[in-house]
Amino acid sequence: MSARDLALFTDLYELKMLQTYRLEGMAEAGVFDLYVRELPESRNYLLACGLDDALAWLESVRFRKSDLDYLATTGHFRDDFLKWLETFRFTGDVWAVPEGTPVFADEPLLEVIAPVGEGQLAETFLMNQVHFQTAVASKAARVVQAASGVPVVDFGMRRYHGTDAALKAARAFTVAGVASTSNVLAGKTYGIPVAGTMAHSFVQAFDDEMDAFRAFVRAYPDTVVLVDTYDTIEGVEKLVALAREMGPAFRVSGVRIDSGDLVELSRRSREILDAAGLERVGIFLSGGLDEHRVAEVVRSGVRVEGFGVGTRMGVPPDAPTLDIAYKLVEYGGEGRLKLSPGKPILPGRKQVYRAIGADGRAERDVVARRDEVHEGEPLLVEVMRGGERTAAGRESLADARERARRETARLPDPVRGIEPAEPPYPVVVSGPLLDVQRRVEERFAD
Amino acid sequence: MSARDLALFTDLYELKMLQTYRLEGMAEAGVFDLYVRELPESRNYLLACGLDDALAWLESVRFRKSDLDYLATTGHFRDDFLKWLETFRFTGDVWAVPEGTPVFADEPLLEVIAPVGEGQLAETFLMNQVHFQTAVASKAARVVQAASGVPVVDFGMRRYHGTDAALKAARAFTVAGVASTSNVLAGKTYGIPVAGTMAHSFVQAFDDEMDAFRAFVRAYPDTVVLVDTYDTIEGVEKLVALAREMGPAFRVSGVRIDSGDLVELSRRSREILDAAGLERVGIFLSGGLDEHRVAEVVRSGVRVEGFGVGTRMGVPPDAPTLDIAYKLVEYGGEGRLKLSPGKPILPGRKQVYRAIGADGRAERDVVARRDEVHEGEPLLVEVMRGGERTAAGRESLADARERARRETARLPDPVRGIEPAEPPYPVVVSGPLLDVQRRVEERFAD
Repeated sequence: MSARDLALFTDLYELKMLQTYRLEGMAEAGVFDLYVRELPESRNYLLACGLDDALAWLESVRFRKSDLDYLATTGHFRDDFLKWLETFRFTGDVWAVPEGTPVFADEPLLEVIAPVGEGQLAETFLMNQVHFQTAVASKAARVVQAASGVPVVDFGMRRYHGTDAALKAARAFTVAGVASTSNVLAGKTYGIPVAGTMAHSFVQAFDDEMDAFRAFVRAYPDTVVLVDTYDTIEGVEKLVALAREMGPAFRVSGVRIDSGDLVELSRRSREILDAAGLERVGIFLSGGLDEHRVAEVVRSGVRVEGFGVGTRMGVPPDAPTLDIAYKLVEYGGEGRLKLSPGKPILPGRKQVYRAIGADGRAERDVVARRDEVHEGEPLLVEVMRGGERTAAGRESLADARERARRETARLPDPVRGIEPAEPPYPVVVSGPLLDVQRRVEERFAD
Repeated sequence: MSARDLALFTDLYELKMLQTYRLEGMAEAGVFDLYVRELPESRNYLLACGLDDALAWLESVRFRKSDLDYLATTGHFRDDFLKWLETFRFTGDVWAVPEGTPVFADEPLLEVIAPVGEGQLAETFLMNQVHFQTAVASKAARVVQAASGVPVVDFGMRRYHGTDAALKAARAFTVAGVASTSNVLAGKTYGIPVAGTMAHSFVQAFDDEMDAFRAFVRAYPDTVVLVDTYDTIEGVEKLVALAREMGPAFRVSGVRIDSGDLVELSRRSREILDAAGLERVGIFLSGGLDEHRVAEVVRSGVRVEGFGVGTRMGVPPDAPTLDIAYKLVEYGGEGRLKLSPGKPILPGRKQVYRAIGADGRAERDVVARRDEVHEGEPLLVEVMRGGERTAAGRESLADARERARRETARLPDPVRGIEPAEPPYPVVVSGPLLDVQRRVEERFAD
């Protein structure tokens, strides 16, 4: 579905609030922050992702006739409101942290400044996309880090949560440095390199494993061959036999091992291949991999040419969701917050400054009021003005990927690593911002 | 995106295998089983879901010109193959367990019988939809069970994994007995009741909480009012004041509490409301709920009119994915399996029989060869023949929901409950099926 067909991708209450704001004549600007309240224990940082889809929705959201007809049937909306929705456009501004930037708790990923009802309506879609894409980009960055330069391939679309997740995960992984995907639709949609060879079922369909290898190699001479359908080591030996059989025509580029003790099987396979003079045949590993298993393989020192990672990267079991929030922080020029239990809201417009040390490494972040000036690089940039993207809001996927590579490299080593960083990366809230928070709190606690 | 636009929603290797099967002239029927190898520890059963979307894809999969143009750019496909894809149709049969049926490990949810390349190509989309919808329907069934008749509302689309997950989750929840959803697009798409009132940000946008209540009640007189933005008990007291202010015009139906100690706050809110003669104002709870927290509220005996459940139902942290597989079990009339480490495949076509006791309760399941006859109700029915749905393949969402209600009620109480059932529900593999497995194993282990 294109963003244009997703006007109704919203919680019902957003529309009810929008109608009520209209009835009350409340059209002043609200400021909404989209941010993560707390990092999962197993994340030292998050990789911002999903902005492009968020902006696409804001730019193109339109209520179609069938949407309005449906809304009329719910009994929640007045005719004049539905009439008004016909010409609804998002007219606000957005400041955001560009995709591929490492971010931390309390730092706005997006700041939406718009007539309060418009900002409210955007909540559901913006959260849905930024939450998911940030969650899986952040996981993938860890896998890429653990792989130490060995290419990682996205193999998991079958177990990601629906079609949109599979598509957007492939996109987010690309930002995070994953090399390619098995997802053909993602290849078509985003121009991401696609990869993949054969399944166990292909081998099973032949009476003889060797015949399966022969058939696939006939069609794809430089393929990777899946060797673990019956017995991994025998599979590798059969491939060696095929190499002898084919002589100089043999161009197979690798073997894939998808089960068993991957380190031990890789070592033995490598020995067999090397002994047969097949040094150029690589080893490709898959099957239940995550950053920790990948790190274990890398630590073992065995030569590996690729990691196929899937389910645990696209549906991270250690942090399948993030504690993400979209909160009104200002209305009519005044700071806003809520006092119910949980982490307090920081009111008002903000900027995040990343202080860079003499060694070029990120040292700490300051979350400040918009009108403060601090040392360091400001992270929030204007990506949409009056409902239209600015140049900064039109980045390519390649730009985001390059930023992620560059900016994660600037993180302190323990923060970039896959073990919990101790101490965690320092994020401080500025004194002036804390002052505002205290004043607004006092006002609303009365 | 409609199923028609999702021909490329596939792993690259499916298309490469399809081309290779064609080159090798391998067009005999393959049988593929889609099943779960092992239940998550925290599931006593799964609720089958996702079949309707699977069949929609099979029925309508078409490669469009832009798809073929893209595939040509990958360099993996011959012109004659791409030409052939132009007219590609799925021509096979499907047997399946109807949606809303409780299922267990080793039981095929779908059996696809088709020219082997067609069955192979279907793997990715079928797994993607059946996996996700079954995973979240199974979680939701637990929440509904725990709620003991109190309506459960789906509140979580913002944190589900992408737009398709949010849409399909609302559908799966409906099968599982969830009463309504906040997801307006799901309401439009499936005719599911939609629900929702106001967010904290609405209350925050007013200088005074009482003014926020007044404004929303003006627009929606019988609304539920969110009372925990600043202080829950004060919020309830303000609502009581509003009732006095409005007199007979006061028709507010409930208060929503979204944070804090929900049992204690519900109890105190109930006392305050009752003391004010507002017995008919209900209490609606939300905020980080799952089946265990819902059960705790129900056990406390406090009167609650509804549970809003979100993130933990649509992205179940205890089982965010299932150990689902799609395996070739027969080709050219002969049983197939693989021997690599992991649970072994049961070869050949099958039927699952559910034995029902004298009390009408399900007693055990037998996974048998298709040609065996057993006591009990056969679970797999023919839902597609020659690429077209049968009547059994055209069930309504209401049918699936009714089946789930009826069939989960027939499960033994401990199996239907949310604590681990000890012993688990018995599923046995028939003697003849084990014999076949042994024979095929011996053949391929040579």
